[in-house]
Amino acid sequence: MIKDNLALYLVTDRGLSLGRDLETVVMQAVRGGVTLVQLREKSIDTREFIALGLRLKAALAGSGVPLLINDRVDVALAVDADGVHIGQSDMPYEMARRLLGPDKIIGLSVETMDEVRQANDLDVDYVAVSPVFATHTKTDTLTPFGYEGLERACELTRHPVCCIGGMNADTVGRAIACGSDGAAVVSAIVSAPDPYIASKNLKMIIDNELDKRRLG
Amino acid sequence: MIKDNLALYLVTDRGLSLGRDLETVVMQAVRGGVTLVQLREKSIDTREFIALGLRLKAALAGSGVPLLINDRVDVALAVDADGVHIGQSDMPYEMARRLLGPDKIIGLSVETMDEVRQANDLDVDYVAVSPVFATHTKTDTLTPFGYEGLERACELTRHPVCCIGGMNADTVGRAIACGSDGAAVVSAIVSAPDPYIASKNLKMIIDNELDKRRLG
Repeated sequence: MIKDNLALYLVTDRGLSLGRDLETVVMQAVRGGVTLVQLREKSIDTREFIALGLRLKAALAGSGVPLLINDRVDVALAVDADGVHIGQSDMPYEMARRLLGPDKIIGLSVETMDEVRQANDLDVDYVAVSPVFATHTKTDTLTPFGYEGLERACELTRHPVCCIGGMNADTVGRAIACGSDGAAVVSAIVSAPDPYIASKNLKMIIDNELDKRRLG
Repeated sequence: MIKDNLALYLVTDRGLSLGRDLETVVMQAVRGGVTLVQLREKSIDTREFIALGLRLKAALAGSGVPLLINDRVDVALAVDADGVHIGQSDMPYEMARRLLGPDKIIGLSVETMDEVRQANDLDVDYVAVSPVFATHTKTDTLTPFGYEGLERACELTRHPVCCIGGMNADTVGRAIACGSDGAAVVSAIVSAPDPYIASKNLKMIIDNELDKRRLG
């Protein structure tokens, strides 16, 4: 994976997708500029999770957009996804790396400054600073980083960074300006009236900020 | 795995264990004669599932009793368990075999006579005829096989058979007499006042019936 894949990172949520089909929403978002997709499913049978993963993988084939699976290394292996995204309650990183091999992408959520520090000892492909702002997507009660915390996390980590939690058209620009390499978005895309337009708009804002950084 | 490992098959359920520690209950049951252990957990974080699996594996080391993991191939791989038990909503058998390799045990639940037939096309290590009787352990609403159905399933399958659902001291003898190679037990062991005594009693009944079969 390259850092550029983090720019606009879509995390799926079928419950928030207004009844629309998973692949439809994802592919509209990809056409709009999404650079990475994570299939996140909770409370679903393993067989159904695998079936969804295979459908998304087929839909994304040839798009150049990698597919990650949330938490489930077995599902990632079964569908030959590009990698997994793991949280602090999921499989420990070293075990996941051993099972997935050196070439798969493994991203890790970091929810405190201590976890940002600890992740510097791991060879994860990226860290997801989570949450920047409190949301209804996560039921966990975590202290949000805010922009200041995100900026410190970006300074502290040796890894590529994306950030998640309250990312939408009003917040992604500032989040990138804090040093994040990208923003992970759930409802601002999957619940948007038009996921293509929403993604296109978010991508434009993010690319603008990334350009400013490159030009110094 | 050999057929003998199916004789008295313990499926764990922490919620039914009367607040007692998982390893304590399992090791009492193993001393009482349990021949196979399946760690079954629903609604648990992957990290906690792995931690439980590692603890049980350490407790069982040297006992000769294999440890299977319910559903989760990733957890089985992470803890290097002896295999998995999969249901019809879990990972399809062929995928699980590919991920686990030829030497791990894979058992499959069969819940209808059609599924018994279909399993004859797979190289599973055993089938679990489920349920013989309705129980509160499973929330699914399946038609129980009953003794007659179990007998027909045993005739129909080419695999070693265990049976599950309502197995206790009153039922295991007759279930073995129907042709099953063993009985999988949940509450009759984990909810027993003394899991050691309960297992010892069940094992005696089962061994008696298996001896009758061997002696023709």
